[in-house]
Amino acid sequence: MSAPPESFVRRTIRPLAPYGPPRDPAPVPLHLNESPSDVPDDLKRVLVERLFRSDWSKYPIVDGARLAGALAAVAGVDPAGTMVGNGSNELLQLLLVATLEPGDRVVVAAPSFALYALQARALGASVVEVRLRQRDGSFRFPIDEIAQAAQGAKLVLLGSPNNPTGTTMTAVDAGRLAGSCEALVGIDEAYRDFCGQDFAPLLAAHQRLVLFRTFSKALAAASLRCGALFAAPSLCAELRKVQLPYNLSAPTCLVAGELLAHPELVRERARLVAAERDRVAAAIRGFGCTPHPSGANFVLFEQEERPASALHAALFRRGVLIRDVSSAPDLGKALRVSIGAPAANDAFLAALEAEL
Amino acid sequence: MSAPPESFVRRTIRPLAPYGPPRDPAPVPLHLNESPSDVPDDLKRVLVERLFRSDWSKYPIVDGARLAGALAAVAGVDPAGTMVGNGSNELLQLLLVATLEPGDRVVVAAPSFALYALQARALGASVVEVRLRQRDGSFRFPIDEIAQAAQGAKLVLLGSPNNPTGTTMTAVDAGRLAGSCEALVGIDEAYRDFCGQDFAPLLAAHQRLVLFRTFSKALAAASLRCGALFAAPSLCAELRKVQLPYNLSAPTCLVAGELLAHPELVRERARLVAAERDRVAAAIRGFGCTPHPSGANFVLFEQEERPASALHAALFRRGVLIRDVSSAPDLGKALRVSIGAPAANDAFLAALEAEL
Repeated sequence: MSAPPESFVRRTIRPLAPYGPPRDPAPVPLHLNESPSDVPDDLKRVLVERLFRSDWSKYPIVDGARLAGALAAVAGVDPAGTMVGNGSNELLQLLLVATLEPGDRVVVAAPSFALYALQARALGASVVEVRLRQRDGSFRFPIDEIAQAAQGAKLVLLGSPNNPTGTTMTAVDAGRLAGSCEALVGIDEAYRDFCGQDFAPLLAAHQRLVLFRTFSKALAAASLRCGALFAAPSLCAELRKVQLPYNLSAPTCLVAGELLAHPELVRERARLVAAERDRVAAAIRGFGCTPHPSGANFVLFEQEERPASALHAALFRRGVLIRDVSSAPDLGKALRVSIGAPAANDAFLAALEAEL
Repeated sequence: MSAPPESFVRRTIRPLAPYGPPRDPAPVPLHLNESPSDVPDDLKRVLVERLFRSDWSKYPIVDGARLAGALAAVAGVDPAGTMVGNGSNELLQLLLVATLEPGDRVVVAAPSFALYALQARALGASVVEVRLRQRDGSFRFPIDEIAQAAQGAKLVLLGSPNNPTGTTMTAVDAGRLAGSCEALVGIDEAYRDFCGQDFAPLLAAHQRLVLFRTFSKALAAASLRCGALFAAPSLCAELRKVQLPYNLSAPTCLVAGELLAHPELVRERARLVAAERDRVAAAIRGFGCTPHPSGANFVLFEQEERPASALHAALFRRGVLIRDVSSAPDLGKALRVSIGAPAANDAFLAALEAEL
């Protein structure tokens, strides 16, 4: 009798549940923190014509390096310290695969994006969670506590703004953290455009800082799966040994490169989201709920009236899909709503008002 | 004094050199085993119009599963045992990351695609190479020897047709191998269309068999980075726990799905390549070189006249870029030339004749 194929999988993976957001479609989808608007049609037209004229049968040999160069120029960082991937997730996984050995320690915030801990555990790392919730009920990054937990750890992995709380770290705190941790400090800046955050200037002084960026949020290109990593060139040289050749498709490189040339589109979306975020938070508060401060394109809110899962289901029955995060640490009463276009936000607020 | 960032990288990665094919452009590029022809313009037009009308700001939530379903239907395998990735390389890396712990043994053929051993070594596995070259100078898969080397190993990773030799395994041998190995047996079928190979029917009887496929060769979509994995559903369920969500972009899923609906294009390219492969091999032999039998869209050949690297450089000076594989085991005198469109093959043959 021979061993079944799944028995060859690492023991650290077997007990895990796969990451998966709710996949029910809904008329008003506010559960994925997507951009409130698409890339404009005139820009899409230019790009698909360029795509039509390109040779699809050729490997994208230089496309990724060219995109990395453009990203580095825009961010003011070293191209040798810039990498691109299929979403920032690919680069996050690359960093974990390249550094973690069984038993290594990884520090994450609780609550935070579930994928950080999932991927670290899959590789046999032990995950230490530092709570963001304070005694007064607010969320903040306890820098000293994180630095202490990082002693002897290989990696600290945080998101700022943090998903799903919206909690944002100041640049001063980010610098203090990177300066006081002996571990590599990875900060996922996926939502940075919605609060004007930019930790790239910290890279010059902090060799162990690793930043992740994405084209899926304010750049409105989630369908293309494009992300970036900024880090010390000496670290990137090692990561490149494990990264797969031509990892990013030619269409993704083509579109992403062009989007970098249109910062005005990002500014416009960020402005809209910030205004709508204030409006939605104020309305939620008016309904007797507690919204938490957010630097991202979503708002975490709590209410005492009904179980979070019941309210989530009721909103879904009204055609509005938001995210039930109430199973996460310290979030027993919390739901997360993405900030969409004004009409979608109106639909959400009307549904919420009707249910409360 | 604090540790430099690269010191956090696994010791098994530090000594490795990154994988990288020659990147010099050339008028006649026959070094990447790309398709001899692009996707036809009428099909490209339909696809870019569909792309234009899609919403780029949305995550490709269902696109990958839909593509996997279409692939499974075409191949006659279980959709639950089908996965898609950014090139077959992503899926190969996923299998390695999900199964290998430091010290595990992986069996590969020598010579074979360098990425197999590179990725396995990066994860701390020890790589056992089984030589394909026989005493008479020919290449073949020594099935019993491979099965013996696989005792106590976690994985066997082979390519059929094998890159860079072109050596092709029979379905009978593939079944015998999968049946006699206690390890998982991964077979990369990237070049299968050029010899009519199809190991998918073996999956039903062989639970530990894992097949890799690609859209980069006979499907003429290397720019899109799309590959597939077929394996036991119980193994795929574990791999999905580590695979990143929405790993494949919407444009890639869109194009790949449509290409599956046009098997006549693949058949036409495969027929052209097979005919040109015979013609190129015969001409090479006429110049006094020794071409090896190939089931792929390339031919490995040897000659006694000049050092392989010198001949490679001379051809490049004539505008023809082929692959110098002479540093690989048992290939001291060998070069590999991709089979391109007839005009490109003519240019190669003219350059070779002029140099010999």
